[in-house]
Amino acid sequence: MAEQGTLFIYSGPSGVGKGTLLGPLMDPDSLRFSVSMTTRAPRPGEADGREYFFVSREAFEETIASGGLLEYAQYNGNYYGTPRKMVEEELAQGRDVILEIEVQGARQVRKAFPQAVSIFILPPSYEILCERLAGRGTESPQVVENRLAQAKRELLCAGEYDYIIVNGDVETARKQLQAVLTAAKCEKRFMDPFIEKVCEFA
Amino acid sequence: MAEQGTLFIYSGPSGVGKGTLLGPLMDPDSLRFSVSMTTRAPRPGEADGREYFFVSREAFEETIASGGLLEYAQYNGNYYGTPRKMVEEELAQGRDVILEIEVQGARQVRKAFPQAVSIFILPPSYEILCERLAGRGTESPQVVENRLAQAKRELLCAGEYDYIIVNGDVETARKQLQAVLTAAKCEKRFMDPFIEKVCEFA
Repeated sequence: MAEQGTLFIYSGPSGVGKGTLLGPLMDPDSLRFSVSMTTRAPRPGEADGREYFFVSREAFEETIASGGLLEYAQYNGNYYGTPRKMVEEELAQGRDVILEIEVQGARQVRKAFPQAVSIFILPPSYEILCERLAGRGTESPQVVENRLAQAKRELLCAGEYDYIIVNGDVETARKQLQAVLTAAKCEKRFMDPFIEKVCEFA
Repeated sequence: MAEQGTLFIYSGPSGVGKGTLLGPLMDPDSLRFSVSMTTRAPRPGEADGREYFFVSREAFEETIASGGLLEYAQYNGNYYGTPRKMVEEELAQGRDVILEIEVQGARQVRKAFPQAVSIFILPPSYEILCERLAGRGTESPQVVENRLAQAKRELLCAGEYDYIIVNGDVETARKQLQAVLTAAKCEKRFMDPFIEKVCEFA
C-alpha cells in the first residue's frame, strides 16, 4: 500500500548462495538491484553501470564528501560504495531496491534508512559453508582461509538482521526469500499511515 | 527451522473477508485452524469439534478455572474461548496454528504466547466496509449498526498487530497473507537459536 518502495538490505557470507537465491526473483518493474560504485578497474566483460559504476579515486572521494553514498568501504586498496541517488529515485517511484552488501555497509545503511528491511542468508551449518568455500578448488589455501575468516565475521552479525533465511534446500530458501520480500511490506511499521486513514471514520 | 510450530493470531472486522482470504491457504499437514469452545447451542449443520466444541456452561467455567483456555469472552450471554491443549499439542508437533479471534481475545493470547505472530485484515476504507456489511441486506438496520460499531472498535486496535493486510484485491491480499505465514517464521526472534548454532564454529 505504501507509495514509497521498500529498501532491502541483503547480506550473508561469501559462498552461502545469495545470488542463486535472489537471481530469479529480480523484476525490473518492481524490484531493482542497486549498482555499486567502485574505484577498481573493470574486468573483461564488465560494463559501466551494470556490474559497477567505475570511477576514479578522485571522483569517489568527491562523492563521499558530498554525501552521495549510503555506505562505502575500502577493500584491497579500492573503494566500494552505494550511490544514494539511484536508491532514492527508485524508492520514490515506488520500486523496491535491494542492496547486496556486507555487514559493515549494512550498518551504515540502517543508520541512513532506519526503515530498511534487512535479510541475512545463513548456511545450514558452518561446516557446510567451509566445504562450499573450499570446494571451489580454484583458489589458494590462503585465499580460502581469508574467506573463512571473513565469513566468520559476517556470521557473527546475523543477529542484527530483521529476517534470517537458511539456505539448505534452495527451493525452500528462495520461497522464504520471496515471502519476506512480499510480507515485509505488510509489517505494521509501514502500514501505520494506512491504518490511520482507515480509522478516520470520515 | 524451528521445530516448534508458529502460533498466528488472525483478526479483522466482520465483513472484511477473513475467511475468504484464509480458506484456500489452510493445510491439515502444516497449518491448523484452532476450534473454539462455546456454550451456545449448535445450529443446524454444525458439528461438535468442527465449527466449535459445544459444552455446558458448567464445563466451560471448569475449563476457565483450570487454566485450560488461552482466551475467552462472553457475547449475548454465551461463552466463547480457545482451548489451550489443542493449540499446544499442534505447535509441539511442529504444525502452525491460526486463531481467528477478535481484538480482546488477541490481547489475552499475546500475553499467554508472546511469541505469537499477529495479523490484522483491513478493508481498503471504512466506507467500503460499511457497504459490505450493509450489503448483506438480510439483517435489520439495528444489527447492521451494532456490527459497524463493533467493526470500529476492532479497526482502532489494528496498530497492535505485527502485520497488516489490506483486503482490496482478494488475490493480492491472499498472496500477502500466504507470504506473511511463510516469512514470519524467518523473523530474527525465531531464528536466534539457529544463529547461535551456526556461530558455534565447532
